[in-house]
Amino acid sequence: MLIDTITRYQQRVDSQLEKIIDAQTITDPKLLAAIKHGALLGGKRIRPFLVYAIGDMLNIPLKKLDSCAAAIECVHAYSLIHDDLPAMDDDALRRGQPTVHVAFDEATAILAGDALQALGFEIICEPIDGIEPSQNLAMVRALAKASGYSGMCGGQAMDLNATDKQIDLATLTKLHKLKTGALIRCAVELPMIAAQVSPEEQTLLLEFADTIGLAFQVQDDVLDIISSTEELGKPQGSDCESNKSTYPRLLGLAGAQATAKSLIEDALSALTKLPYNSQLIAEFARYIIERRV
Amino acid sequence: MLIDTITRYQQRVDSQLEKIIDAQTITDPKLLAAIKHGALLGGKRIRPFLVYAIGDMLNIPLKKLDSCAAAIECVHAYSLIHDDLPAMDDDALRRGQPTVHVAFDEATAILAGDALQALGFEIICEPIDGIEPSQNLAMVRALAKASGYSGMCGGQAMDLNATDKQIDLATLTKLHKLKTGALIRCAVELPMIAAQVSPEEQTLLLEFADTIGLAFQVQDDVLDIISSTEELGKPQGSDCESNKSTYPRLLGLAGAQATAKSLIEDALSALTKLPYNSQLIAEFARYIIERRV
Repeated sequence: MLIDTITRYQQRVDSQLEKIIDAQTITDPKLLAAIKHGALLGGKRIRPFLVYAIGDMLNIPLKKLDSCAAAIECVHAYSLIHDDLPAMDDDALRRGQPTVHVAFDEATAILAGDALQALGFEIICEPIDGIEPSQNLAMVRALAKASGYSGMCGGQAMDLNATDKQIDLATLTKLHKLKTGALIRCAVELPMIAAQVSPEEQTLLLEFADTIGLAFQVQDDVLDIISSTEELGKPQGSDCESNKSTYPRLLGLAGAQATAKSLIEDALSALTKLPYNSQLIAEFARYIIERRV
Repeated sequence: MLIDTITRYQQRVDSQLEKIIDAQTITDPKLLAAIKHGALLGGKRIRPFLVYAIGDMLNIPLKKLDSCAAAIECVHAYSLIHDDLPAMDDDALRRGQPTVHVAFDEATAILAGDALQALGFEIICEPIDGIEPSQNLAMVRALAKASGYSGMCGGQAMDLNATDKQIDLATLTKLHKLKTGALIRCAVELPMIAAQVSPEEQTLLLEFADTIGLAFQVQDDVLDIISSTEELGKPQGSDCESNKSTYPRLLGLAGAQATAKSLIEDALSALTKLPYNSQLIAEFARYIIERRV
C-alpha cells in the first residue's frame, strides 16, 4: 500500500518535472541537460510524497498539489547538486550515478543548481484553480523561508562548519532541523496552506513534520553505518570518513536508533490527534525508521 | 540631478537590504557575514534604480517599490557571487574588494549565493499595501523567469561556453539579452506590474528596457578596454585576457561604441512615445554610454 503510493506519487512528480523542464525556452542545451540530470536522476521523492499524501489526507485534489510537489523537488534537487560540489561535500556519486559536476563540469553544476532554484519559484507561483492568490503567495513565502539562510542554506553552512569539530547534540539537532528538516516541514506546510486548516491542526501537523524530519536524518546517519555501498548509491561510511558529526557518533548506534524510534512515536502521537484518516501517513512515518536505503 | 537620484535610491535600497539581512534569524554567523559582504559591497544599484525611477515615472509611491528593489538586487548580488567563483569567471576582486570566495571560502560563497537567491524570493512575496496578491504573484513570476534557465542562468551558461570560441553577433546579443538583459528587463517589469499599465505602454517600456540592457553590456565591454583598473575595481582587460567574445572584438572599438549609441537612441525614441515625464529616465539612458565605470 505505502510503497505503491510512494511509487505513484514519484511517477506523478517526475512526469510533472519532465514536462516543465522540456517546456523551457532553450538557451544553453548543456545547462538544460545538467538540470535534467540533477532533477530527474531518481530518488525517493520524499518531499513531493509528503505534499501529495498530506494534501490527500486534508481532502485537497492532487491536481492542486502538482506545482507544490514539483517546486519543492526542484529546490531539493538544486541543494543536492550544490552539496555534491568539490568545495562542499565533494561527492562523485549520487543515487548510483555520477553527480552533476562529474557528469558535466563544476560551472555547469553551479548554474544548474541556481536555475533549478529559480525554477522552483517559477513553478510555485503559477496560478492554481481554486487556490486564492494570497494562499499561493503564502506558499512562495513558505518555500523561500525554508530554502534560505534561516532554513536549508543556514543548516548546510552549520554542517560544513561542524566538520572536524566536536559539536553537542543540541547543535547537531538544530543543524539538521534546518538542513533537512526545513524543507520536510515545508512539504507539510504547502498542502496545509492549500487546505487552510485551523491553527490547532497546523500545530499538530507541524509537530508531525518536525519529528519525522529529524527522524529521517537520524536514520540516514544510522544507515550510513549499517548499509552497504550498493544499497545507498554512495560510498558506505562516507559521513564517518569525512569526520562529520553524526547521531551515532554522539549517541552510539543503539542510542541513535532509539532516538529515531522515539521521534516517530511522537510523530504518530501528533497524527492520532488529527480528525483525518492518517493511516497512510502513519505507515510512512514508520517506514522512515524501517527503511534500509 | 541624475547622480543625486542614483545616490538617493542606492542609499534607499542599501538601507532596506541591511535591515532585511539583519532581521534574519541567526543560523550560521559566517554565512550571514558572507551574505552581507556580497549584498552590501556597494555597486551602482542599477536595477533598484530602474525599479524606483520607472515606478516613480508611473506614479507609484517608492514605499510600494522597496521590496521589488531589494529583491532584484539580492538576485543580482547572488549572481555576482557565483559568477566570481573559481569554476566560473575566477575573479578575486569585485568593486575594489575581495570577492566572497576570497574573503571567506568557496563553500560559503556558493551557499551565500544560494541564500541570497532565496532571500530575493522571500522579499518579493511579502504583501505590499495597495498591491493585489495577484500582482504580487506576477512579480514573483517575473523575477523567477528572469533569473532562471530561460533568463540569467541560461545567459551565463552561454557565456561560459562561448569562452575560447568564435561566436557571431547574433549569439553574443542573445547571450547578453539573457545574462544581463533579463534582470534589467525585470527591473522595468516590476514597477509596470505595480502600475498595471496598458499593453501598448508595456510594449514601449519593455523596448526601452531591452535596448538599455543591451547598451549597458556593450558599454561594459567598451569600458573593459578603455578604462583603468583603478576605475573599474577589477583588472583592466580581464575579459580580453580570458579570451571572451565581446562587442569590441566582433565590431571593433568604434563599431561597439556606435552600436551602444544607436541602442540608446532607440531607447529614447520608445520613451518619447510614453505619456509620462521621462526626463530622469532619459538622462539615465544617456548616462549608460557616457559613464566611465
